[in-house]
Amino acid sequence: MKPLSDSERAELLAGLDGWSLVEGRDAIRKHFIFDDFNAAFAWMTRVAMVAEKMDHHPEWFNVYRKVDVTLSTHDANGLTRRDIEMAQRMDQFAAGLNEA
Amino acid sequence: MKPLSDSERAELLAGLDGWSLVEGRDAIRKHFIFDDFNAAFAWMTRVAMVAEKMDHHPEWFNVYRKVDVTLSTHDANGLTRRDIEMAQRMDQFAAGLNEA
Repeated sequence: MKPLSDSERAELLAGLDGWSLVEGRDAIRKHFIFDDFNAAFAWMTRVAMVAEKMDHHPEWFNVYRKVDVTLSTHDANGLTRRDIEMAQRMDQFAAGLNEA
Repeated sequence: MKPLSDSERAELLAGLDGWSLVEGRDAIRKHFIFDDFNAAFAWMTRVAMVAEKMDHHPEWFNVYRKVDVTLSTHDANGLTRRDIEMAQRMDQFAAGLNEA
């Protein structure tokens, strides 16, 4: 996995909703807030399955209904397409839960 | 839920394995390391069920096979017996996984 090029970076990051660059590190971050712990952990469980399948695991902090996620590709020492894909999956799953 | 008294605190904290007091806050913390993400998230799932049933939720940070946990009772603004009980359940579940 190669780090994102400058043009990929500009294009792909612009396509993400609510993600921001982490200061001092080539990573992206988003703060998710769900209805309650049940919804937050249900979301984490769906993400965990995908993370394991992709062999690409998030850094995440949870307390009650909040989950703070940081994505970066440790092997590439920075952002790659896998982080973009993971961010998209996380957003899809979160949207699904909010519809309920 | 009342905060732990000094005598309860001395007795109950001494009975915990690997937990330490958090500086600047009435909370306890432990860093768990599992075999892999599968084991770490399996453990988190067992804990999540108990947390929901107790209505007592941890603050936890996970990356791959590591989980850093902080326990405190927000309503009591400090440590209570529920934190001790949660710490014990977490240790029990972790021991179960390590036996596998």
